Amino acid sequence: MSATASRPTLEAVAERAGVSRATVSRVVNGAHGVRAALAERVRRAVEELGYVPNQAARSLVTRRHDAVAVVAAEPETRVFADPYFAQQLRGISKELTAHDNQLVLLLTEGREDHARVGRYLAGGHVDGALVFSLHLDDPLPGLVRDAGVPTVFGGRPGWDDGRDDVVYVDSDNRGGARDAVRHLAGLGRTRIAHITGPLDQTSAADRLAGFRDVRAGADPGLVARGDFTSGGGERAMRELLARCPDLDAVFAANDLTAAGALRVLRERGRRVPDDVAVVGFDDMLPVAEQTDPPLTTVRQDIEGMGRLMARLLLRGPDRGAGAEESTATAPDTPSGVVLPTTLIRRASA
Amino acid sequence: MSATASRPTLEAVAERAGVSRATVSRVVNGAHGVRAALAERVRRAVEELGYVPNQAARSLVTRRHDAVAVVAAEPETRVFADPYFAQQLRGISKELTAHDNQLVLLLTEGREDHARVGRYLAGGHVDGALVFSLHLDDPLPGLVRDAGVPTVFGGRPGWDDGRDDVVYVDSDNRGGARDAVRHLAGLGRTRIAHITGPLDQTSAADRLAGFRDVRAGADPGLVARGDFTSGGGERAMRELLARCPDLDAVFAANDLTAAGALRVLRERGRRVPDDVAVVGFDDMLPVAEQTDPPLTTVRQDIEGMGRLMARLLLRGPDRGAGAEESTATAPDTPSGVVLPTTLIRRASA
Repeated sequence: MSATASRPTLEAVAERAGVSRATVSRVVNGAHGVRAALAERVRRAVEELGYVPNQAARSLVTRRHDAVAVVAAEPETRVFADPYFAQQLRGISKELTAHDNQLVLLLTEGREDHARVGRYLAGGHVDGALVFSLHLDDPLPGLVRDAGVPTVFGGRPGWDDGRDDVVYVDSDNRGGARDAVRHLAGLGRTRIAHITGPLDQTSAADRLAGFRDVRAGADPGLVARGDFTSGGGERAMRELLARCPDLDAVFAANDLTAAGALRVLRERGRRVPDDVAVVGFDDMLPVAEQTDPPLTTVRQDIEGMGRLMARLLLRGPDRGAGAEESTATAPDTPSGVVLPTTLIRRASA
Repeated sequence: MSATASRPTLEAVAERAGVSRATVSRVVNGAHGVRAALAERVRRAVEELGYVPNQAARSLVTRRHDAVAVVAAEPETRVFADPYFAQQLRGISKELTAHDNQLVLLLTEGREDHARVGRYLAGGHVDGALVFSLHLDDPLPGLVRDAGVPTVFGGRPGWDDGRDDVVYVDSDNRGGARDAVRHLAGLGRTRIAHITGPLDQTSAADRLAGFRDVRAGADPGLVARGDFTSGGGERAMRELLARCPDLDAVFAANDLTAAGALRVLRERGRRVPDDVAVVGFDDMLPVAEQTDPPLTTVRQDIEGMGRLMARLLLRGPDRGAGAEESTATAPDTPSGVVLPTTLIRRASA
């Protein structure tokens, strides 16, 4: 086994070629997004050094694992408590199973474990990765990129480093938010408040932007920070009522937030929708139907997003067969695929 | 790559040695449970044929993946809806993370996907597997065995093929059930009913056996079949009340079942515990505390079972370093490790 130890490493190739490890990894794995000249330099260095890709990298070239990793950038406890994630996972699971691919869910206790996730992805155990719940300062996207496996992101990633080969699936968060706020304005409401999600996630930032598109110049006191949980919705609703007791409508960044806001409104004797109209986002069932009153909300096709993510990954250029069937439902060379939303009217607004 | 195609296969080695593929795989992977004489025959066949283990098998010998698969023999939707599994997973995740091992959760849509899980396990992507929720007729144990990776089962497996090297972690289901029924008898109850779990799982079968240990010769009408869900508990409770309106106690096979039974008892105007005393099993929180009245139940340390499963797997003889710290809490060469249960008294009995 001493022969193994003296083999030239990926690092040595990277140094010789004057490129990053990630670039070497991508070239060796046959991935895209590397300029021809760079790729040529890497191939020359590989040859000169007699570099043999490790088992993992080689197996990516010579065969498919028929396995796809799903990575959520949240601790295991949150992943399992989150109905939104469960619903996306359902779509992913159905689509991967239909293509006889194994769903490999990589769980962590927290952000400090993401390096290990990166190592697993780089270790040649999966053909690609579906990555979720990115926060703006998360190291995971970089680790995933270094791993050199094809990746589709769930939700528009928040970073911007000029790369145009990032593939993601998202809902039209901004457009959906505009629909919600226009609906409230159409009911004659003039003091429309917004409870945001965690603003280090693009979904929450985009919904706030949609609110502002319609209510440019609104009283800043009408915006309160939430965190996509019902507890956060309760806290924010109390804040809003203290600051702007004359508010007559609330657009909550998601349904759980709206459920919390509704509880506080009832507790304070405000009638919904007569005194305060409320709109949520997600159409998360059964939550949206079981609130009192049932929730008017912006529906996104959460399970469909999961299916589409899996489909985009499976039809990647590396995958050949089985790709044709899905081209009908997705653009040809997508970077971001943004799905439309629909306003669902129930009793709360 | 044509050289690869003409290499002797695992099958050829198995044929030459006159053993099963699984045995060859186990010997090649350095696993235990193979008799010395058989192992020697395999090694001779390997040498004679010039067999080179494939990448996967080799990598198990030459390095660790620092990754452990968790496999639940249930569809993805049930896995995500099951608080019991989530709690065991929590224990597993903490323990694996503490040893910098990646938790790899393999999800399926159903039993027809288990062959694919077996292929992934055999593919050299993990150092071992933790396997859950086995039903008596499930093909998964055989597939896991063929994969040749070290395995610890969650719950006593129901099959019996004379192998003494099956490692599992379980609760004392039978002893806990006896405690529950003795407690009810100690309250002076004489018409004690039992709502079972799905009897193709050993946990349910063992709890029924514990009930019968204490109530040998009881009216068979006092036993109704449930399925570990609250809906099943409701149905079974209605059956029992129709058949034995004079019952004065119920031992439910788990807390969800008990919650369903409590709802039906309240609906029928039976006071708990005055008219009917009820005991559950699990001490699943928050369920057991939030029933009306709060539930007397048999506590098992669900998260602790998960931790112990991971610990037993990690300290396997292949793992060397890091194993010592856990020997204090686990027997030396365990086959089954059965954890004690505790009766928790609340208001329902």
